[in-house]
Amino acid sequence: MEVALDKVTMDQVPNEVHQVVAPPYKSSLQKFITKVKETFFPDDPLRQFKGQPLKRKLILGAQYVFPVLQWAPSYSFKLFKSDLISGLTIASLAIPQGISYANLANLPAILGLYSSFVPPLVYVVLGSSMDLAVGPVSIASLVLGSMLTEEVSPSEQPDLFLQLALTSTFFAGIFQAALGILRLGFIIDFLSKAILIGFMAGSAVIVALQQLKGLLGIKHFTKKMALVPVLSSVFQNKHEWSWQTILMGVCFLVFLLVARHISIRKPKLFWVSAGAPLVSVIISTVLSSVIKAQLHGISVIGKLPQGVNPPSVDKLLFQGSHLGLAIKTGLVTGLLSLTEGIAVARTFASIRNYKVDGNKEMMAIGFMNVVGSTTSCYVTTGSFSRSAINHNAAVIGLIDLPSAYLIWKLDKFDFVVMLTAFFGVIFISVQLGLAIAVGLSVFRILLQVTRPKTVMLGNIPATTIYRNIHHYNEATRVPGFLILSIEAPINFANITYLNERILRWVDEEEATINDNLCLQFVILEMSAVSAIDTSGVSLFKDLKTTLTMKGVQLVLVNPLADVIEKLQKADEVDDFVREDYLFMTVGEAVTSLSSLMKGQSPTMEEEEAQKIVTEY
Amino acid sequence: MEVALDKVTMDQVPNEVHQVVAPPYKSSLQKFITKVKETFFPDDPLRQFKGQPLKRKLILGAQYVFPVLQWAPSYSFKLFKSDLISGLTIASLAIPQGISYANLANLPAILGLYSSFVPPLVYVVLGSSMDLAVGPVSIASLVLGSMLTEEVSPSEQPDLFLQLALTSTFFAGIFQAALGILRLGFIIDFLSKAILIGFMAGSAVIVALQQLKGLLGIKHFTKKMALVPVLSSVFQNKHEWSWQTILMGVCFLVFLLVARHISIRKPKLFWVSAGAPLVSVIISTVLSSVIKAQLHGISVIGKLPQGVNPPSVDKLLFQGSHLGLAIKTGLVTGLLSLTEGIAVARTFASIRNYKVDGNKEMMAIGFMNVVGSTTSCYVTTGSFSRSAINHNAAVIGLIDLPSAYLIWKLDKFDFVVMLTAFFGVIFISVQLGLAIAVGLSVFRILLQVTRPKTVMLGNIPATTIYRNIHHYNEATRVPGFLILSIEAPINFANITYLNERILRWVDEEEATINDNLCLQFVILEMSAVSAIDTSGVSLFKDLKTTLTMKGVQLVLVNPLADVIEKLQKADEVDDFVREDYLFMTVGEAVTSLSSLMKGQSPTMEEEEAQKIVTEY
Repeated sequence: MEVALDKVTMDQVPNEVHQVVAPPYKSSLQKFITKVKETFFPDDPLRQFKGQPLKRKLILGAQYVFPVLQWAPSYSFKLFKSDLISGLTIASLAIPQGISYANLANLPAILGLYSSFVPPLVYVVLGSSMDLAVGPVSIASLVLGSMLTEEVSPSEQPDLFLQLALTSTFFAGIFQAALGILRLGFIIDFLSKAILIGFMAGSAVIVALQQLKGLLGIKHFTKKMALVPVLSSVFQNKHEWSWQTILMGVCFLVFLLVARHISIRKPKLFWVSAGAPLVSVIISTVLSSVIKAQLHGISVIGKLPQGVNPPSVDKLLFQGSHLGLAIKTGLVTGLLSLTEGIAVARTFASIRNYKVDGNKEMMAIGFMNVVGSTTSCYVTTGSFSRSAINHNAAVIGLIDLPSAYLIWKLDKFDFVVMLTAFFGVIFISVQLGLAIAVGLSVFRILLQVTRPKTVMLGNIPATTIYRNIHHYNEATRVPGFLILSIEAPINFANITYLNERILRWVDEEEATINDNLCLQFVILEMSAVSAIDTSGVSLFKDLKTTLTMKGVQLVLVNPLADVIEKLQKADEVDDFVREDYLFMTVGEAVTSLSSLMKGQSPTMEEEEAQKIVTEY
Repeated sequence: MEVALDKVTMDQVPNEVHQVVAPPYKSSLQKFITKVKETFFPDDPLRQFKGQPLKRKLILGAQYVFPVLQWAPSYSFKLFKSDLISGLTIASLAIPQGISYANLANLPAILGLYSSFVPPLVYVVLGSSMDLAVGPVSIASLVLGSMLTEEVSPSEQPDLFLQLALTSTFFAGIFQAALGILRLGFIIDFLSKAILIGFMAGSAVIVALQQLKGLLGIKHFTKKMALVPVLSSVFQNKHEWSWQTILMGVCFLVFLLVARHISIRKPKLFWVSAGAPLVSVIISTVLSSVIKAQLHGISVIGKLPQGVNPPSVDKLLFQGSHLGLAIKTGLVTGLLSLTEGIAVARTFASIRNYKVDGNKEMMAIGFMNVVGSTTSCYVTTGSFSRSAINHNAAVIGLIDLPSAYLIWKLDKFDFVVMLTAFFGVIFISVQLGLAIAVGLSVFRILLQVTRPKTVMLGNIPATTIYRNIHHYNEATRVPGFLILSIEAPINFANITYLNERILRWVDEEEATINDNLCLQFVILEMSAVSAIDTSGVSLFKDLKTTLTMKGVQLVLVNPLADVIEKLQKADEVDDFVREDYLFMTVGEAVTSLSSLMKGQSPTMEEEEAQKIVTEY
């Protein structure tokens, strides 16, 4: 096969040089439609509807909106049995988690329990993940609490605080559903893995710091979340430390860590660590009622109201001076909880080899939060710790050192982004730390576009392949040619840089070259230039003018469909892309142009070029 | 030569497949230094210092800081003569322009004259452009006036307004110089040509609207700049319209337009249009003193103080509630005036074939404004209208319809950006219109990165070249292979999309393929993937896992230096880049892998593949 293909090459290529042509004509509207499709519907969600009869389409449509219709008919007793066991395990976690997460959000403990009840009922009807366990999560709780506390004190105005939390939940839901409906789900992709690792670790520290209040039994604790104010608050209130609370807290902490250790050592005993938090709650409840803890200085959360979720539509605030805060908090917590939920759903889908539709999940989670906000629930989402059987009962599991090390090894900039998220969360604030890290990541993308790489190509001896001479040592320069590859779309943000950088290549080239073989052609290899805008077109005009003054020809190789189309359109106005300086491969460009060089006869040229390529 | 090169190809290629190797080792520090150099010093400003003796280095350094030292020794009488004529022409423009621009900025007319005097003296010492004429400009004046008026009324608190204008100028200068010193000049590149065209046209409309105040002689005019409030203010104050002022205004407008028309028809008579504004000022001054205009309802600006610029260091405000406004105004006007100045300097440098150093120009303009702010000048920069002999005395010249049409033809998105800038400036506000347009441009860049193109490649018959099958009609698919080219850096923002999109290509492929030649290899051509981050690495791990489950092999072609390096580093941890599925060209990958396919003997395979390539 190798020989065969190459025979074809030798027999036919020498006789023809391949023309670069514009792509087949498409109207602006067609292009726009294609662009919108590729941007917002990369998964082509309507594919399954094509060519189906109307009735089938209706069923498919209903199943699309309510995935429960898809799986319910085939739901078996066996599935029910395993679901029951999972359900009981998760419920045993939900009680302690609900209480502590509500505490993080500065909300009454009962809200944590309410939030573990209604949202799963909504998700089961709308969600498409088979593994996602929904409920309140630590990060969203923390952020909700910390953002609202900035304006309203949960201890002084508990009713207003609760109203704002529910209103924020409502807006979080609206925002999440809107992202799904508008198919803008890619926004959560901007929270990269590096950011999340740094952010989770930072949040773990913040959460642990907040636990000091409970562990030490301090009553006058700072409202702030950052490291410095919390620590100073801890040490300024030494007189409030309660040894009884500390003793009990440390005992339970040791108990939980031991339980976790056992489960990690013997994965079969996973239920030990799964059950430990519930056991702690039960033991501590019994203990506190027996020894009447409050009398002995141990802090308790008090009695919880009975019954299921009361309606809370009347608690939503759509006016007043705090509306802006509620919307902002909704946006941030909505985005964060969405990120966690989608990430969990995707992880399990890939492990068990089924698909979740990101945009559909967003609608499900969003609708779940809207319903939740009317039934006394605060922000919920799919939770890592609940979904994974192998969950982490202690906060320490949020700090992922092996991944941090891998990031350090692979990409130093990503590592800096991670550290930024971590220290930003610890020292500034949860939302600002996150924002700075995202900003840094976006800045890096923009920098890549603003400062695209231009690399010099050389010939891999005895082939027509041209590669970066700083990458492949065997790649050799071809005298008389400067072959540059541009590795980014060309647009307003980089034309000034590219113009300067290319002319510097040319200057350096002219300074080093000997007299008998001066620079005659600058070949720009454009295979990596995926797009071009009006400013980009003007770069070629300017380059062409400058190079022509120096007696050097500009040659373009393999401009892609969009690029060649725009260059040719601009060319109708100013004639600057001549067909005889446009080639499909660098190899063809060099062979064709070498024969033009210095008007020598083709035969002499052949031999010389041959010598050059192999000896240079 | 063609034949010769191809002979080499046929003789040697069949025997070897070229290995993709990691680039030569470089430490993280070396890479960091290279990166910083390429990002911030693409012009390598220290090049000329290399290998020079110390004395020469000192002279070069002084010339770098004060370009006047470079050209002053060779300044000739001939140059002086032409400079004198230009100087007089520009001075004749400076008076009417200074007055009207100061008016746009809601500042006393005398400030416009002061600003035309000191800044050129500073620029002549520090600037490196031979053609740049500096002074106040319309857009920066307009923005300065409009931003400050939002908080402080120029008629009620004229002293505070003046102080804020000078303070803004100071901050504009500091900001401009800082951009130059920190070599962050690329920030102005984000104001693309499309944005500037839309912005200038919008500003022209706003400026023209503001002139209605003077033209109609309205005294109670709105403080706002946008279209709607200005027009409603004009028609609500009909009773203030003064026919004398209107008559005089219309007469002078006709005079200026006729003068401009003459100059355009006969370029030799350029002085007609150049002198017209000054003549208007003189005639109107004489007229107003003769007929005592104020008595007859014609508005005059009053007497101007005598003497040169008084010092104004004591007027700079570095505290108080308006400091934030002054800094913000300084940033916006600084950026805008820098854009205009650098664009003018670059345009003239390219016309007359010399070079201006963008970062150096920024320092010069910045220092000029800092000095200006201490000598009663407001924001100044290099001005299009003054620098060009062929200037436009009327605002209408700011509306560039031919360029707008070219943008429409080349790039619809750029056209939308242009319209956004235009309508944003007219209907919302100058700074917000600009910000939205820049945001839209940046969004487009991010969208290109978030939704990179993946195109399917096919073989150009009888060659080893592979190109987009939707671009080149003759390109044909190779059965058993799915060859995709990814056209963007792979990072956190696009891995989810790429994963989905590539798997959709595979699904579609599997759905259409016939039984005897099912999909065996997915080849990813990575020549256009200029960079990759840690998330990008995980994409390949995930793809590899998913494809292996489908019984399909993932093959990578030509990963660039950075990419292969990171993939191999990650590979030390998980083994997912096997050398036998890594090739330098698509052609080599297809030939090598075809021989592996279905374990047929190479000879049979040869013939079959040959048939496939030519007949498929």
